[in-house]
Amino acid sequence: MARYVQDFSEGGKDQKDLLGGKGANLAEMTRLGLPVPPGFTITTDACRAYMRTGQLPPELRVEVTMAVRRLEDALGRGLGDFHEPLLVSVRSGAKFSMPGMMETVLNVGLNDASVVGLTEFSGDERFAWDSYRRLVQMFGKTVLDIDGDLFADTLDKAKAAKGVDEDVDLDAADLRALVDAFKEIVRTESGREFPQHPREQLDLAIVAVLRSWNTERARLYRRRERIPDDLGTAVNICSMVFGNLGPTSGTGVAFTRDPATGHTGDYGDYLVNAQGEDVVAGIRNTLSLTEMEAADPRAYADLRAAMRRLETHYRDLCDVEFTVERGTLWMLQTRVGKRTAPAAFRIATQLVDEHLITEDEALDRVSGAQLAQLMFPRFDARADRTLLTRGMAASPGAAVGRVVLDSATAQRWAAEGQPVVLVRRETNPDDLGGMIASVGVLTARGGKTSHAAVVARGMGLTCVVGADRLEIDLTARSVTVGDRVVAEGDTVAVDGSTGEVFLGEVPVVPSPVSTYLEQGLDAALTQVAETGEDDATSDLVRSVHRLLTHADEARRLRVHANADTAEDARRARALGAEGIGLCRTEHQFLGERRLLVERVVLAEDDAARDAALAELLPLQRADFTALLTEMDGLPTTIRLIDPPLHEFLPDLTDLAVKVALAEERGQADPQDVRLLAAVRRMHEANPMLGLRGVRLGLTVPGLFALQIRAVCEATADRLADGGHPHAEIMVPLVGSVMEVHLVRDEALRIMAEVGAERGVHLDLPVGAMIELPRAALTADRVAEAAQFFSFGTNDLTQTTWGFSRDDVEAAFFPQYLANGVLTESPFESIDTKGVGRLVRIAVEEGRAARPDLVVGVCGEHGGDPESIEFFDQVGLDYVSCSPYRVPVARLEAGRAAIRTGS
Amino acid sequence: MARYVQDFSEGGKDQKDLLGGKGANLAEMTRLGLPVPPGFTITTDACRAYMRTGQLPPELRVEVTMAVRRLEDALGRGLGDFHEPLLVSVRSGAKFSMPGMMETVLNVGLNDASVVGLTEFSGDERFAWDSYRRLVQMFGKTVLDIDGDLFADTLDKAKAAKGVDEDVDLDAADLRALVDAFKEIVRTESGREFPQHPREQLDLAIVAVLRSWNTERARLYRRRERIPDDLGTAVNICSMVFGNLGPTSGTGVAFTRDPATGHTGDYGDYLVNAQGEDVVAGIRNTLSLTEMEAADPRAYADLRAAMRRLETHYRDLCDVEFTVERGTLWMLQTRVGKRTAPAAFRIATQLVDEHLITEDEALDRVSGAQLAQLMFPRFDARADRTLLTRGMAASPGAAVGRVVLDSATAQRWAAEGQPVVLVRRETNPDDLGGMIASVGVLTARGGKTSHAAVVARGMGLTCVVGADRLEIDLTARSVTVGDRVVAEGDTVAVDGSTGEVFLGEVPVVPSPVSTYLEQGLDAALTQVAETGEDDATSDLVRSVHRLLTHADEARRLRVHANADTAEDARRARALGAEGIGLCRTEHQFLGERRLLVERVVLAEDDAARDAALAELLPLQRADFTALLTEMDGLPTTIRLIDPPLHEFLPDLTDLAVKVALAEERGQADPQDVRLLAAVRRMHEANPMLGLRGVRLGLTVPGLFALQIRAVCEATADRLADGGHPHAEIMVPLVGSVMEVHLVRDEALRIMAEVGAERGVHLDLPVGAMIELPRAALTADRVAEAAQFFSFGTNDLTQTTWGFSRDDVEAAFFPQYLANGVLTESPFESIDTKGVGRLVRIAVEEGRAARPDLVVGVCGEHGGDPESIEFFDQVGLDYVSCSPYRVPVARLEAGRAAIRTGS
Repeated sequence: MARYVQDFSEGGKDQKDLLGGKGANLAEMTRLGLPVPPGFTITTDACRAYMRTGQLPPELRVEVTMAVRRLEDALGRGLGDFHEPLLVSVRSGAKFSMPGMMETVLNVGLNDASVVGLTEFSGDERFAWDSYRRLVQMFGKTVLDIDGDLFADTLDKAKAAKGVDEDVDLDAADLRALVDAFKEIVRTESGREFPQHPREQLDLAIVAVLRSWNTERARLYRRRERIPDDLGTAVNICSMVFGNLGPTSGTGVAFTRDPATGHTGDYGDYLVNAQGEDVVAGIRNTLSLTEMEAADPRAYADLRAAMRRLETHYRDLCDVEFTVERGTLWMLQTRVGKRTAPAAFRIATQLVDEHLITEDEALDRVSGAQLAQLMFPRFDARADRTLLTRGMAASPGAAVGRVVLDSATAQRWAAEGQPVVLVRRETNPDDLGGMIASVGVLTARGGKTSHAAVVARGMGLTCVVGADRLEIDLTARSVTVGDRVVAEGDTVAVDGSTGEVFLGEVPVVPSPVSTYLEQGLDAALTQVAETGEDDATSDLVRSVHRLLTHADEARRLRVHANADTAEDARRARALGAEGIGLCRTEHQFLGERRLLVERVVLAEDDAARDAALAELLPLQRADFTALLTEMDGLPTTIRLIDPPLHEFLPDLTDLAVKVALAEERGQADPQDVRLLAAVRRMHEANPMLGLRGVRLGLTVPGLFALQIRAVCEATADRLADGGHPHAEIMVPLVGSVMEVHLVRDEALRIMAEVGAERGVHLDLPVGAMIELPRAALTADRVAEAAQFFSFGTNDLTQTTWGFSRDDVEAAFFPQYLANGVLTESPFESIDTKGVGRLVRIAVEEGRAARPDLVVGVCGEHGGDPESIEFFDQVGLDYVSCSPYRVPVARLEAGRAAIRTGS
Repeated sequence: MARYVQDFSEGGKDQKDLLGGKGANLAEMTRLGLPVPPGFTITTDACRAYMRTGQLPPELRVEVTMAVRRLEDALGRGLGDFHEPLLVSVRSGAKFSMPGMMETVLNVGLNDASVVGLTEFSGDERFAWDSYRRLVQMFGKTVLDIDGDLFADTLDKAKAAKGVDEDVDLDAADLRALVDAFKEIVRTESGREFPQHPREQLDLAIVAVLRSWNTERARLYRRRERIPDDLGTAVNICSMVFGNLGPTSGTGVAFTRDPATGHTGDYGDYLVNAQGEDVVAGIRNTLSLTEMEAADPRAYADLRAAMRRLETHYRDLCDVEFTVERGTLWMLQTRVGKRTAPAAFRIATQLVDEHLITEDEALDRVSGAQLAQLMFPRFDARADRTLLTRGMAASPGAAVGRVVLDSATAQRWAAEGQPVVLVRRETNPDDLGGMIASVGVLTARGGKTSHAAVVARGMGLTCVVGADRLEIDLTARSVTVGDRVVAEGDTVAVDGSTGEVFLGEVPVVPSPVSTYLEQGLDAALTQVAETGEDDATSDLVRSVHRLLTHADEARRLRVHANADTAEDARRARALGAEGIGLCRTEHQFLGERRLLVERVVLAEDDAARDAALAELLPLQRADFTALLTEMDGLPTTIRLIDPPLHEFLPDLTDLAVKVALAEERGQADPQDVRLLAAVRRMHEANPMLGLRGVRLGLTVPGLFALQIRAVCEATADRLADGGHPHAEIMVPLVGSVMEVHLVRDEALRIMAEVGAERGVHLDLPVGAMIELPRAALTADRVAEAAQFFSFGTNDLTQTTWGFSRDDVEAAFFPQYLANGVLTESPFESIDTKGVGRLVRIAVEEGRAARPDLVVGVCGEHGGDPESIEFFDQVGLDYVSCSPYRVPVARLEAGRAAIRTGS
């Protein structure tokens, strides 16, 4: 027989599926013997049954009757009692928090009789009638679906009639009249009397809460947050306690440690003679917990004991809500508390030292995303600063530049070498050029998924959004905050990690954590001492060191870096990279060498092309020799040239305009005319899907051969110098095994040639970059020719979704995030259902065909905390990411190993 | 115990895996009692064992000894015999034909002794020594790996010394001396004597044939043709018979019916006193089989009897090779013969009438590709014509136009409204513009996978390639064929179905098959009579009618058409379409309406955009009403607008040049300047992967709503008129189920609105176009919102392969086809391993989530014969293709149903 009701004393924190989050934690506190007002939870089973049949399950009625009886017995009060009435709250509580989505009814149990009892019990007639007024209003709106404005208007009229502005200025008589008026509204609108019978109130409130699971807004919210519709909500029925019954009553929120800094010791706010809403509303000044201790030492001692018990029990920082009713402490809610990144690291190591958790658990309590936050440069703590305003921290970093008010100005000033901060009411796709030109972006409107926020995060650009006190005057070319006016061209400093905006220059320093990661613990501690930061900072650096060291011991995934130059490689190695997962050789064709590539492209015959390629050979060889020297002894994956050759030529439209104008003036340069013809010939409608990667290599004679020869010769040079080079050759944009066969055949030929010339044995692995769905879908075939796979998840995301990142991120990602099509950009965290499924297919089927296949990822997802756990699960050998993400990846790889037990 | 040898008398045609194609058919003929020279086959098992171990399996030696003994006993001759020598041929024969890839050694068994016996037996000393000379030469080159040029040079010197040009002018003594010289070459080059022992010759020849399976060129060929490496080849050892032993000997090839026209009655060529190569070389005139009957009635009667037996047995047209040795017929090879498209249809129905095959089998003997060939317009058979030259038929059709010699001229003349035929030595990507402008293409170089051939087939453009007698003189602007000169501007007629090129105009008529398909049997037969074509043509039309009717009865797949206008729809319905699978609404925004779209794009506020959209509403509604009228009672799938809006605006580069020049002259049109800003703002790097499809619909307010409302109103109009409209709404470029949810929610709202306005109940299905890998990979989720799926396999191929069709087809497909990366364009036939796998995933997982999901395909593959069988196998409900492909799809759907028994 199904049981639909559990008393708080029966459940526990692991029953969130059945009791919801709030109910499970109330039960846990009850089980711990903490003072929770008695109550019970109607389980999610009841909700699911209600959704299935549209009716409450018949057993429920009896179970509720018995549970209410237990409540009344425990408290010695009665629902609807004339002297000592029991009031209860009826609250929703689902497994996953759905803030504001579902219903709550308070003060259930009040009626024309028990309101007198409440007066008696509280000694406050106004309080009793106000509570009744609130019940009728909330019940009418929530349970009986009456338009809430009817009640609000009536309330307003009552205040107007009395000539007062605030609810508190209405006295008991006024409120009693209002109750009558509200009951009249209920009668007229619902065609029935306000139910006097407390049990009827309770039953109707329960149904209203259950129904609220399936309102349109709740379904929309779940769809967006990917919460399954069939979870259902629990209903918590809790006896009410009051913190507003005089000076020995009060209410507060508290944390078992400081969630901002991680300092030990409790921390919170307390408000005497108040109810929960009053704390949130901030009408009166709250007391600190130390002040509470002075005001009410007994209640404070009870609270401290309860919090200590909770922390020891939950083995983590907890936050609590509590009420003191006439000197008695009541715990109303608890949960594991949110915290800042520095607090997360410090608390995790504190708890290890306190023997509450293991080092594995400590590692699981911090995240790569938090570590990344700690690595951003920041404003020098010693410097003076003037706060201009504050917004939402949308994309971290510390940016200092001159205010510009439009995109064109931003681009013009940036072209002159000036750092600029683009300040807009909100941004739209037309601002993209300006954003690219800026060091930071500041908007007055929008939230964390606004255009500015999304695009800035995608670009790694410091950004603060929603600084709503900003007023921008495009005519006066100035920005106003209150009475302060900032002219376009004035300097501001934007802190993307805190949302703060400062007036004038503020010096930027590297974060001590970043100094630790690059130069070691001693250097970081020295910096902390020199810049006069507090002990918390050196404690933080030590915490990071401990947890990262533990992650390195625990992890199965290797961490490589994407590095195109010897300098990048050196930095990556310092940050802990165990190899190069991606060296993009095309970056070595920029600058002056671009002209040589232009000659390759424009060559009119094979001889001319070969001559240009031959000039590139020593340059490439030198690049690779330097790279292999830095990475001596470690695998170094070199990707053959990937982008279409026309990327090395000028822009078609610009050149066409230039030539047309020159011709108009009779001064056309024949070289330009010839170049224009070449650019036109090579122009592609969709270059990302055009003649690039291995297609280019198989079409332009000698291009790949040049690069392969340079790698082979560099390897031979290093061997001659006694080095230990481990170069690997990666074929980009593979769609078919034949492409790998053809490049590999050529590579084997060149290895044999260079080997013979230099008297060494060369056996460089040749592998495939898996960045097209077809390569993943035919991985068994591709693995016949490829000795390793490396997932290019950027391009794989582009082709799997049909997204051109350049085109879509600004054009509609903000819209898609707002309407819930995307919950996050698939370029930030891997889309496990689509792109990830291809990765999984390729790993499994590639390894089935070639059991010793080495598999890694070299897209930007390789450094994304959320994605790394996925890559660990599917069994990759390594992740490769930009040098600065290497520590993040190390930490996440350790966490992933601990979680999967790998 | 493995058996590695099978006599011809032991096997049969179903043993191709074991005996190879040639061996299996020789065994089958032997089993039928036809006169096959005795012989045996070394099975592919032996080849596989040899590949594994590098050695012949030890049992093989004994088995060959025994098989040779059986041969000698059967023929009463001996290997190496001094009087009646047995000679054998040693030929490769794999399961799949690999023409020219593997080795053959003839005349094995000749040595210094048996050459005398052969002289005696044949009575022809020259013949005997020439046979010996050939053996030493072939053996030296093939078996002993001696450079073949050494033998050829020595032969040339012998002829030069004697002052003759031809081999046949060398007499017995010359050839005897050559044998000595060749033996000397063998001695010098291989360090051993030419083996005199016939068994040693045989063993070495067998090993040589087996080794030839794994030569580099054979492996390359197999890789390209996707033939597994582990199949191995069989080796056929067959006693040699000679057709060149005098006037009662001869050799020939024959067909059991005419493979060109399908006429009944045997058909072939016979050459008296000749060997196989002589027939192929065409040195002497051959006799027809009727003439053979007169010359050698007994041998002819035997041949006819054998052929009748073969046809009855194989139940199909067979071709045979045979030799008559001194009046005795020997069958050397048979197989089911290739045939032209008309012959295929006629023979299939003939065989039904002759009770040899069923109608199901007949349907399987023809193909949609053959039907498509029969539908192309052709040159009027009654018209005079002058053949200019002949090349390879690369892309079918009949094109008449003026010769142009370069792409620029082609585009210029075409712009003036003149039909042109582009004539080039060969084409390259720069010729693309010219090809698009032409009605036909003719090249002097290149084969069926040359650039011209591949691109023309992709474009459906008539094309003949490799007309190697063409000489193009770009200075004289003329084309020469022999002594005939064609000036640029002269008219030619190119037949892409036959490879013929005619001088001057030739009138084009629709093919009678096409008339049948569009207007019915009577109209087609009337046309045949009026144009004076022969009975074969009316027989052909009747055959097509019978087989297509049978296909319609047999098929499970429905056939829909892609049609954008009412006229297209009417034509499609006439050709048998059972619905519209894809109506591309953007095509309805071209012409004058483009300006309205431009207003939508350039609208500066919502009001301006809404006004432009409102003007489009009645136009769209009228389009849909007309379409639904034509398709009354049939499903009509309307795709919401798909391409990016900027496709409706001018080209960026052209406009930038125009504005720059106008500004230079001080005459800039403000409208143009504004337009340029809009074009720049909307410009996308990769528009195919940009803001289009459902992304556009969810970003531009009101756009999809306009279209959905127009569909709803058109449906309401039709219902009011008593019609039976079945419009369905298709959402393009879906990547996530949420996109479908959002459009569907809006569609439901509009259906309810229009339904209320018009007093009808509207319940139009809303479905998703599956054209992105992600939609396929998450089909279970997409099917939660989508009521039907339609695969857009063009875009799905583009994203799965990362190919932009516009960019890659001309740029590197020819190269990729040449080096075997592609065996055919994945845009022509579906790539079952990659794209097809996604289709299969989506069908299975979509149906699992929604069992009544209707699934079709509306990409061009829907009309591709090879793809349709795949679509049947994966269980689609329908294919949709261009109206003209509907009959092809009907036929292939019938064939697919018969094959899979569906």
